[in-house]
Amino acid sequence: MDASPVAQDANLGKRANTILQTCFFAISGILPKEEAIDKIKKAIVKSYSLKGEKVVKMNFNAVDKALENLFQVDYPKVITSETSMLSAMRGASDGFVTEVLEKILAGFGDELPVSAFTVDGTFPTGTSQYEKSGIADFIPVWDDENLCTQCNKCIAICPHAAIRSKVVSNEDIASFPTSLKSVPAIGRPFSKENESYILQVSPEDCTGCDLCVVVCPAVSKVKENFKAINMHKKIDVDVEENINWDHFVTLPYYDRTDLQTTNIKGSQFLEPLFEFSGACSGCGETPYIKMITQLYGDSIMIANATGCSSIYGGNLPSTPYKKNEFGRGPAWANSLFEDNAEFGLGMKLGLTKKQEIAVDLLRTLEPLVGSELVEAIINNPEDKEILKKEKFAQIDALKIKLESLKDNEDAKKLSQLTEYLRKKAVWIFGGDGWAYDIGYGGVDHVLSTGEDINILVMDTEVYSNTGGQASKSTPLGASAKFTIGGKKTSKKSMAIQAISYGNVYVAQIAMGAKDLQSLKAIQEAAAYPGPSLIIAYSHCGEHGYELKHAVSQQEKAIDSGYWPLFRFDPSQPKGKRFKLDSKEPSIPLSDFMCNEARFTGVVKENAELGAELLNQAQDEVHSKWERLELFRDL
Amino acid sequence: MDASPVAQDANLGKRANTILQTCFFAISGILPKEEAIDKIKKAIVKSYSLKGEKVVKMNFNAVDKALENLFQVDYPKVITSETSMLSAMRGASDGFVTEVLEKILAGFGDELPVSAFTVDGTFPTGTSQYEKSGIADFIPVWDDENLCTQCNKCIAICPHAAIRSKVVSNEDIASFPTSLKSVPAIGRPFSKENESYILQVSPEDCTGCDLCVVVCPAVSKVKENFKAINMHKKIDVDVEENINWDHFVTLPYYDRTDLQTTNIKGSQFLEPLFEFSGACSGCGETPYIKMITQLYGDSIMIANATGCSSIYGGNLPSTPYKKNEFGRGPAWANSLFEDNAEFGLGMKLGLTKKQEIAVDLLRTLEPLVGSELVEAIINNPEDKEILKKEKFAQIDALKIKLESLKDNEDAKKLSQLTEYLRKKAVWIFGGDGWAYDIGYGGVDHVLSTGEDINILVMDTEVYSNTGGQASKSTPLGASAKFTIGGKKTSKKSMAIQAISYGNVYVAQIAMGAKDLQSLKAIQEAAAYPGPSLIIAYSHCGEHGYELKHAVSQQEKAIDSGYWPLFRFDPSQPKGKRFKLDSKEPSIPLSDFMCNEARFTGVVKENAELGAELLNQAQDEVHSKWERLELFRDL
Repeated sequence: MDASPVAQDANLGKRANTILQTCFFAISGILPKEEAIDKIKKAIVKSYSLKGEKVVKMNFNAVDKALENLFQVDYPKVITSETSMLSAMRGASDGFVTEVLEKILAGFGDELPVSAFTVDGTFPTGTSQYEKSGIADFIPVWDDENLCTQCNKCIAICPHAAIRSKVVSNEDIASFPTSLKSVPAIGRPFSKENESYILQVSPEDCTGCDLCVVVCPAVSKVKENFKAINMHKKIDVDVEENINWDHFVTLPYYDRTDLQTTNIKGSQFLEPLFEFSGACSGCGETPYIKMITQLYGDSIMIANATGCSSIYGGNLPSTPYKKNEFGRGPAWANSLFEDNAEFGLGMKLGLTKKQEIAVDLLRTLEPLVGSELVEAIINNPEDKEILKKEKFAQIDALKIKLESLKDNEDAKKLSQLTEYLRKKAVWIFGGDGWAYDIGYGGVDHVLSTGEDINILVMDTEVYSNTGGQASKSTPLGASAKFTIGGKKTSKKSMAIQAISYGNVYVAQIAMGAKDLQSLKAIQEAAAYPGPSLIIAYSHCGEHGYELKHAVSQQEKAIDSGYWPLFRFDPSQPKGKRFKLDSKEPSIPLSDFMCNEARFTGVVKENAELGAELLNQAQDEVHSKWERLELFRDL
Repeated sequence: MDASPVAQDANLGKRANTILQTCFFAISGILPKEEAIDKIKKAIVKSYSLKGEKVVKMNFNAVDKALENLFQVDYPKVITSETSMLSAMRGASDGFVTEVLEKILAGFGDELPVSAFTVDGTFPTGTSQYEKSGIADFIPVWDDENLCTQCNKCIAICPHAAIRSKVVSNEDIASFPTSLKSVPAIGRPFSKENESYILQVSPEDCTGCDLCVVVCPAVSKVKENFKAINMHKKIDVDVEENINWDHFVTLPYYDRTDLQTTNIKGSQFLEPLFEFSGACSGCGETPYIKMITQLYGDSIMIANATGCSSIYGGNLPSTPYKKNEFGRGPAWANSLFEDNAEFGLGMKLGLTKKQEIAVDLLRTLEPLVGSELVEAIINNPEDKEILKKEKFAQIDALKIKLESLKDNEDAKKLSQLTEYLRKKAVWIFGGDGWAYDIGYGGVDHVLSTGEDINILVMDTEVYSNTGGQASKSTPLGASAKFTIGGKKTSKKSMAIQAISYGNVYVAQIAMGAKDLQSLKAIQEAAAYPGPSLIIAYSHCGEHGYELKHAVSQQEKAIDSGYWPLFRFDPSQPKGKRFKLDSKEPSIPLSDFMCNEARFTGVVKENAELGAELLNQAQDEVHSKWERLELFRDL
């Protein structure tokens, strides 16, 4: 049976579980068919009645449709394909990838000797590109390149870095197939005459979440429901689009030093050093990580808390983090759920020590290396891309000098540490289960130290990876495991707790609603020479709605005051430190809550309690807003 | 050598360590005497030079004086005393005390069989009274009962409950020795004609800290340096004062239901259920614990974090917590440093469950027990002493009924649980090392639950028990281990973090400066039907000054804005929730800091840095005050 169209016909969207379960019982003979169907329908009532009668009926209908659409497939009894599982890893050249990773992925990991692994336990990065899952039934295609405004909002929101744009010289694409569309590149710093803009999806890496199409502002005035990009049945377009992608990846990224990275468009021409992760389709967390790697990926170390982000961030044996063409990319590790902030602090202390040793050695070698180069290296603030590029050149020059001094012990030592003459940052990543709950003691401690560390909390307001348990971030009135009838206490105000330190940069952001504010916050946090905390709204399947609506839901979260956007920057003068980036609540909270099953489920189970909790939550929106307004005087 | 007078003559106050060390080396012959003295002087320079040249010279002088005052003691070569170590435990009647505790104290614990201990590991309370340490050289004596205002401030501040007052009927003391002074009791509800006020110290439990004398407001107008109580050389007064104390303890406490416990005077007639602990002389923590046990000791369970309070709170084998004459007192336990708040939350959940079971059983038995008694028990709010007394009587009546129903299974069960028909509270005690640092994740979690639990943080601003390491509570500019040159980051604002929840009662108090505000905060926290957090300023030997000056130092802490006093009560209407109980800073911060070695040591080590940190700290006082003023609108 072709389950996807059946699910769609039954208004179940992409959810084919009921349909496939029905087929299994219909043909396996484990239970008499009639009895099995009866039990499935009873299970549907049990599972979905909280979500409303409509959902129950849709599933009943899906069961009936499943039985109608079953047909026998006569598959060959022997393997006829010439493509083995291992060779599915297209383009891998790294020996570790072909000899170790492929074997593990193919299920033969137990056959690998210990000697096949690296001595220090590190795994190469950038290997998720070899693991083509191809799970989408529908993928976006750039249908109308002339309608496209080249805004790159689709690039920013894509959870999997599966849609990308490049600006390239016309020469570079002269020999490319015409199916790979392009248009003259518009805006600074591009040359309309000599440079072209290309937007391309990777069909096998796209998960079909629709978010790129939903966020696209380029709506046709003549053709209904038509934008610059639109979803197409993958089977109709994948051969051509795969060829296009293969050409696209050979094109160079635009020179970072020429891009205007303070706006979404410019920042999205930067190469993502986090791609094709195993995160859920439509994930609200990964766009933040991707953006950070675009901006700073070549100079950061990441301590990752346990949770979704540790799973999709290092899903052994492949990893979505990667190096750029110069061999630079994030270093990444995951410790425990309860000590990730401390783990990151340790990274930072180690980094600082190595940087001190490197500078000391450089000073010692100044008579041999030359004051000009030493001063240039030490005094380069690297706060602009062009200066960072100069630093790379300065270090290359130093390496040559050190090579000529190889009999000098200090030179030998420094040659191992030149990397630490660069500016590097530690980022600490995790979800709310870590940051608000299990690891909060550590988060608070790191913020207290005054150290220049950046913390990104991807706040889904629930333990996502472990299956939807309530955290201290879960809002009043939401249903979650351990508080299934609706949480009776408020969401904790971690932002206010952090602001209480006075010297911590704190931002609350929501990329789906205001991508530019997210970008600003990330850049300010990175620039702030002390601890930073970014609390990033992350829509999640656990919220109970189809995530292609995540953009409008995030907008409603902002407009209702459910998720105020703000930035607190201690480096600004008094009275200008706290910026409220969203407007006073203008729509009722219920307009936001009524679209998510985590809230509506509570009302369905107990209408009176649901109404009471909604009232409380609405009151809380007002009192929280009032409190935030007090902060303008900080 | 009689070391104490030598120390006093050398201006070292009670510090005889240098003197005794000198004597040891002078007579032990371990090192040649001259060499030993030389080394001691070098060690003095090393240990005390940070505290200033004056301190070094005083110690040099003490060494010389020690040598001058050495004399040979001809002690008998056989034991001549008829009093054994064991019989030093005067008045113990409990078998466990005489058979187990005494042996452990005498150093014979290893001889005890496992069977000597209780099956569940509990230890009897109220046993610190048998461990008379008698460490004071000087003790307070109530010299002028007519000068005395009967304010009881001396009782409140005493860290060891070693000075007490009682109001008793004149009949009760008619046969007492005249050395036990008394005066007509003044104020409500006492009868001047028939009742007398007595103030008495326990010479063997007093540690000679001076605080009671310092806090005494009753200064003689005719006699210089003379108050209602004054310090006397113990050896001159102890025989008589011990006799007085032995009589005093036989007198009854005043009926709780008649006392006005909302003021210091009235509250201090309540029996302390925490006495004679092993806390340091002059301890700033224990007065808070003592006050809580006076007010609520017969109905509380205490979860105690590791730290000073776990050591003096349960210094095996004796414990300072005790039962009152009705056999009711605090239940107390200490878990780990890192989980004490969670430990207390578990106590609370267990307590609630038992209370629910008890009420359910009572309802089930209503036909047999009678509705009148059942309703009386269930509806008694116990929010006044008189109602609590009624509850005891109601439960006694219930017990009699249950006894008559002993064949009924539910009655049997309920008879085990009648205690849980009472209102009981869980208190969580600990220091700043626990609350701000190691256990903060749990403190925050408990506050988030909305549960009716009370947390007391005895804030010494440093890890006291482990020897003075910096915590997140350590203020900017203070020297502590790990930040010996002066802390460069600010003290964490745990109060603001807790206030961010909106439904947590939060108070910042300082009993030495404003005992009445402390009393109010404790009573409001206990009454508030949700989580409460009290942050209690606790002077400590680690601050580096003689603690008899703690009262004036606490006053300076308030007046300089170093330690603002406030209460945030969410049960009050908006605009009245946040009360600032101290006035706008009126003296420079340096007036407070200049008296404590934790601050002055930094200046002595590095004058420039010290000045810079003082400036920063002074700025911080202003900005913190401004922030607190914003809270008036909450």
